[in-house]
Amino acid sequence: MNFLNSSAKRKSNLCTGTWPIVIVSFAMFVVSIPSRADEGMWTFDNLPVKQLQDKYHFVPTREWLDHVRLSCVRFNDGGSGSFVSANGLVLTNHHVARGQLQKSSTSERDYVKDGFYAATLDKEIKSPDLEVNVLVSMENVTDRVRSKLKGMETGKAEFAARKEVMAEIERESTEKTGLRSDMVTLYQGGEYWLYRYKKYTDVRIVFAPEDQIAFFGGDPDNFTYPRYDVDFALFRIYENGKPIDVKDYLKWNPKGPGENELVFVVGHPGLTQRLDTVAQLEFDRDYFDPNLIKRTKHRIAALTAYAALGDEQSRQSSTRIFGLQNGLKFVEGSYKGLLDKNVMTKKERDEAEFKAKVLGRPELKETYGGAWEAIAEAVRKDSAKVKQSLFQSTDSQLANLGSMIVEYVTEIKKPDGERLDGYHDAQLESTRFELFSPAPIYPAFEIARMTASLEQAVEELGPDDPFVKTVLHGRSPKDAARELVNGTKLANPEVRKQLVQGGESAVAASGDPIIVMERNLDPIRRENLKWHEDNVESVLQQSGEKLGKGRFAVYGKNTYPDATFTLRLSYGQVKGYPMNGTKAPYKTTLYGLYDRALSFDSKGPFTLPSRYATGRDKIDLSTPVDFVSTADITGGNSGSPVINRNAEIVGLIFDGNIESLIGGYVYSDEASRAVSVETGVITEILEKLYSAQSLADELQGTRLNR
Amino acid sequence: MNFLNSSAKRKSNLCTGTWPIVIVSFAMFVVSIPSRADEGMWTFDNLPVKQLQDKYHFVPTREWLDHVRLSCVRFNDGGSGSFVSANGLVLTNHHVARGQLQKSSTSERDYVKDGFYAATLDKEIKSPDLEVNVLVSMENVTDRVRSKLKGMETGKAEFAARKEVMAEIERESTEKTGLRSDMVTLYQGGEYWLYRYKKYTDVRIVFAPEDQIAFFGGDPDNFTYPRYDVDFALFRIYENGKPIDVKDYLKWNPKGPGENELVFVVGHPGLTQRLDTVAQLEFDRDYFDPNLIKRTKHRIAALTAYAALGDEQSRQSSTRIFGLQNGLKFVEGSYKGLLDKNVMTKKERDEAEFKAKVLGRPELKETYGGAWEAIAEAVRKDSAKVKQSLFQSTDSQLANLGSMIVEYVTEIKKPDGERLDGYHDAQLESTRFELFSPAPIYPAFEIARMTASLEQAVEELGPDDPFVKTVLHGRSPKDAARELVNGTKLANPEVRKQLVQGGESAVAASGDPIIVMERNLDPIRRENLKWHEDNVESVLQQSGEKLGKGRFAVYGKNTYPDATFTLRLSYGQVKGYPMNGTKAPYKTTLYGLYDRALSFDSKGPFTLPSRYATGRDKIDLSTPVDFVSTADITGGNSGSPVINRNAEIVGLIFDGNIESLIGGYVYSDEASRAVSVETGVITEILEKLYSAQSLADELQGTRLNR
Repeated sequence: MNFLNSSAKRKSNLCTGTWPIVIVSFAMFVVSIPSRADEGMWTFDNLPVKQLQDKYHFVPTREWLDHVRLSCVRFNDGGSGSFVSANGLVLTNHHVARGQLQKSSTSERDYVKDGFYAATLDKEIKSPDLEVNVLVSMENVTDRVRSKLKGMETGKAEFAARKEVMAEIERESTEKTGLRSDMVTLYQGGEYWLYRYKKYTDVRIVFAPEDQIAFFGGDPDNFTYPRYDVDFALFRIYENGKPIDVKDYLKWNPKGPGENELVFVVGHPGLTQRLDTVAQLEFDRDYFDPNLIKRTKHRIAALTAYAALGDEQSRQSSTRIFGLQNGLKFVEGSYKGLLDKNVMTKKERDEAEFKAKVLGRPELKETYGGAWEAIAEAVRKDSAKVKQSLFQSTDSQLANLGSMIVEYVTEIKKPDGERLDGYHDAQLESTRFELFSPAPIYPAFEIARMTASLEQAVEELGPDDPFVKTVLHGRSPKDAARELVNGTKLANPEVRKQLVQGGESAVAASGDPIIVMERNLDPIRRENLKWHEDNVESVLQQSGEKLGKGRFAVYGKNTYPDATFTLRLSYGQVKGYPMNGTKAPYKTTLYGLYDRALSFDSKGPFTLPSRYATGRDKIDLSTPVDFVSTADITGGNSGSPVINRNAEIVGLIFDGNIESLIGGYVYSDEASRAVSVETGVITEILEKLYSAQSLADELQGTRLNR
Repeated sequence: MNFLNSSAKRKSNLCTGTWPIVIVSFAMFVVSIPSRADEGMWTFDNLPVKQLQDKYHFVPTREWLDHVRLSCVRFNDGGSGSFVSANGLVLTNHHVARGQLQKSSTSERDYVKDGFYAATLDKEIKSPDLEVNVLVSMENVTDRVRSKLKGMETGKAEFAARKEVMAEIERESTEKTGLRSDMVTLYQGGEYWLYRYKKYTDVRIVFAPEDQIAFFGGDPDNFTYPRYDVDFALFRIYENGKPIDVKDYLKWNPKGPGENELVFVVGHPGLTQRLDTVAQLEFDRDYFDPNLIKRTKHRIAALTAYAALGDEQSRQSSTRIFGLQNGLKFVEGSYKGLLDKNVMTKKERDEAEFKAKVLGRPELKETYGGAWEAIAEAVRKDSAKVKQSLFQSTDSQLANLGSMIVEYVTEIKKPDGERLDGYHDAQLESTRFELFSPAPIYPAFEIARMTASLEQAVEELGPDDPFVKTVLHGRSPKDAARELVNGTKLANPEVRKQLVQGGESAVAASGDPIIVMERNLDPIRRENLKWHEDNVESVLQQSGEKLGKGRFAVYGKNTYPDATFTLRLSYGQVKGYPMNGTKAPYKTTLYGLYDRALSFDSKGPFTLPSRYATGRDKIDLSTPVDFVSTADITGGNSGSPVINRNAEIVGLIFDGNIESLIGGYVYSDEASRAVSVETGVITEILEKLYSAQSLADELQGTRLNR
């Protein structure tokens, strides 16, 4: 994917919170979905046992599932990963590690471009602001949430009560267990769960290859296949200054999977909208996606111009440009799917069928029958505000930090249940970790980003928009950006700490131009948010929950919930597919890497890193590089391990093919495929091209002795 | 293409005939088509000089064109080729040579599968029935044809008069010059030309690689790209038992073309229908194509079952199966294009515009205005007969030979101008060459083919169809086929000669079961043909000619005529294209051959010939294999040379990509590409894998001294 969980942030409300660790029952429902397709991102409490048994004659045991779950981690900046050694080594994608590599680089050493390898423990680099989570328990708290909603007359009242009880559950759990505790809404509110995580924040970079091999083929090849990317990186998790000991980690199988082999993907898919109503899809198609595409293109153009100024500018902006291009290709693919008449027709048919069943049963009709129209009405209102929500935006780290500081000092004075998301007691630790990150901020780059976003805000919203007026204050976008960035001290994390510690009075007294601006923007933002909660969010929650319950009533719980950036298990076969008149193979080899490079005369995104150009004869070119499977994944699954029946790791998810991009709305296994790096190529190149034998040994089971 | 000119035979009426050799004026019209696309299969008298000048700043000289034209040959069984040495060496595709390789093979030696190399001249194998032509002159005889049509009242009368004058022109030319003389109808009858060819029938096989490398990727990869096929073969032309001396041959440039380089393709595209009316396209879409697809699938299934019986059965049927699969993939691609609403909408728009211009000018309206409706009425009638014309068919060489014998003895007794096509005086030599071919005929294979086609005839036409009744004569399809094939002596060419020499009385007296059957079928076929000429063909010719003239009147002669399996020049750039979310490169390399083979675990159509599996280290894997260009080609162009500005050969056309298959109806250079073998890989493998140094030397300009 370069399947970073960017789109997930659009809608996910990750909440955090206290409750005794009750290991959830893994009693597996016998569920079935109509087709024999390998569909679904299943929660660990509700696995497709019957499908697995019928099609593959294999069902994971309780021990298998516990072991696998505890071997997997979530990268809180949007990806997945897994433990691959007893000494806390974590495997993920290069593009998941990319943000930390970028933040750890300087004008002298560019770890993104040139890669990084710590040959000994003392050389491992601490990530500036990376939090990694391991899911240790899951608890169904639907009844507790529901009991608080009883008797509420309006969506607005329900919204407030739901928010309050969820913050309360999280807080209680955090206090009691010391674990990160997140409320998770499944099936659009059909169920509420409390997930508890072991949280790690000392995560050190061990190895990353050159960007040019991890992301070989660049933006053109992104989200496509056949592919030749070795998109991996290795971190090590520390506690108390030492690598942690890990009981549950995945055994390395360098042979990779065979054709048609059953594999499992365990990771954290970020966002799908398969249970959304047709009205919501039309909203995305007609309002949200076109405007998001417009915004992203504009930003890419501005940053590409900045990158062209020189090597250092290019280095500073490369990860941001990557993220924008990645998001653009993803949303364009998804948008194209929504424009496909067949897709929409299928959705309309499914909804009509569901609706007919609900309306056909008087008790269901009475309770849930009005939900579709309520949702349609809410998105109708929302569609008028799309431009505002997308373009009232300064694309700037400094501005983001400024707004967080302004919000922080106000929010923590309120009762927990009334605070904005991100500032509940259970969330504060993670929020401060982000807020006080020592990652570098580049003023010229900030000015370029801010200028571009302000220019587009003027263009899209006009000079009289309250946001535009407040930020510009009569200045041109460029002058405003320059004065704000050059005048602020917020790039220094100590300054940010002082402001937060100083509380409301310190923030009110500050003359820092970005704090001043954010103080003035704060009421505008709060007003927008209030409008959105009252008119959209509260309706979607209330009516979504009705449809969730209605779905259970009509179809039973024989399905999986939409993705929520929480742990899921997908399964499928390693299998090629029909492509462009021929067949895409189930795997690729290193021969293909050289073919694709030379086919483009080793230019642009198809340049081979010099290590590969000169080291060709050192490696076995028949080594498989990437492979595809029918496993159902999406953004956020980046870095997920692909494991076989023996719970050995045989691959590493890093992308979906172009045919899979409609997957946010609908799954098909005809040509939609998850793309993975094979394990074997990782150890092959570590040993033969990087002289990283001890690291390869550790992956292959040798106990760390470095 | 595997762009054999199979579809061409659908409609082309290649006529043959006498006239003094008048080298046509190459005065080049200054023509222009609206877009800057590299569109067009241009006749040598009317080249797109302005486009070439504007876009590429290069216009071929008269000398360049003469040299290139005389360097190119037509393979009369459906392909193209070129002279590549002073000693009559001709380069074409393996799949063009395949028929002759098949016919020259036996159960002991399979030249298709194993390839063939004559290290010395005496080892070269004479092709059983291959005729090769070189275009030596072109003459515009439109006025002469038109003068004969003047005053004809009806389409039927015109049809007969046209047929008569064309046979007369061909006969005169043949008698006077001794050259093969073919009438060519261009622009749907907007122009009539006489093309004269030097004809060669002693064409010997020099070299062919293994089918598995020429057609690597098999049916799946056919008509797709990226591709890794070395689809070439070499023949040598003899006269009087000696290799001919050739003045005009293409200089070998083993470097291949660079990205974006201007290249020319010179060859014999078989059939396009770009000037067809919408009614004709709808006929193809709704009647012809679906039935042809059905017929072809049925035949493939039957022959595949036959091939599965054993190695020898597989050998006997492989080339026929290849031909059917190739035709199927082509027509399916083309059919899919016709089903594309965008394509049809464009066609409708273009036609509406042309029609409005004709109807807007009273003199044009008067003469040409009724043509569209006349054509629509003719295809309406034709659509009722599609099943008859496709399924009244015995898929059998013996039956074909039988019907030719029965027709031959009757036709030659008629005045030349009244005969069936193929039996005019000017055509008889070529017809006899085909009829008396010593190529082997396999009885069991014949029975399998015949049985399948008769089964489908019963299924599609019912038991009371006159064709079905006549052939089966109360027997089951299988019994009929068995009795016919086992009872006939027609597999022996001497028997065929005796029947032809014995004339009508010998044929009438024959008790050979196939001759008896064909005698009974002959009146049915003639009646069908008569109906078709009277109701369809004569109307299409008359009205097509009106539209051809109307088009000249409205647009001028700034365009190219539809393909007619006659010499054309196309041009374009060597250029990749957007594919499946990413970019297809402009070329591929030998690395990719190994990647694709291993990606499929070297199975099925992706098996590497053992020479390549074991010889990997002998060859330079960075050698380019195939490349793509925007040149406008179609079936029949197989084997065409790709040449650079210096008239050096840099590649060898062998296919179009899947995006190009709608090209029969409409051209686009967005993603439609011609696929070629690079010259360099041919000499690389000849030298390093086949120990064919002297042949490689001859290609590279060393005078033959073997």
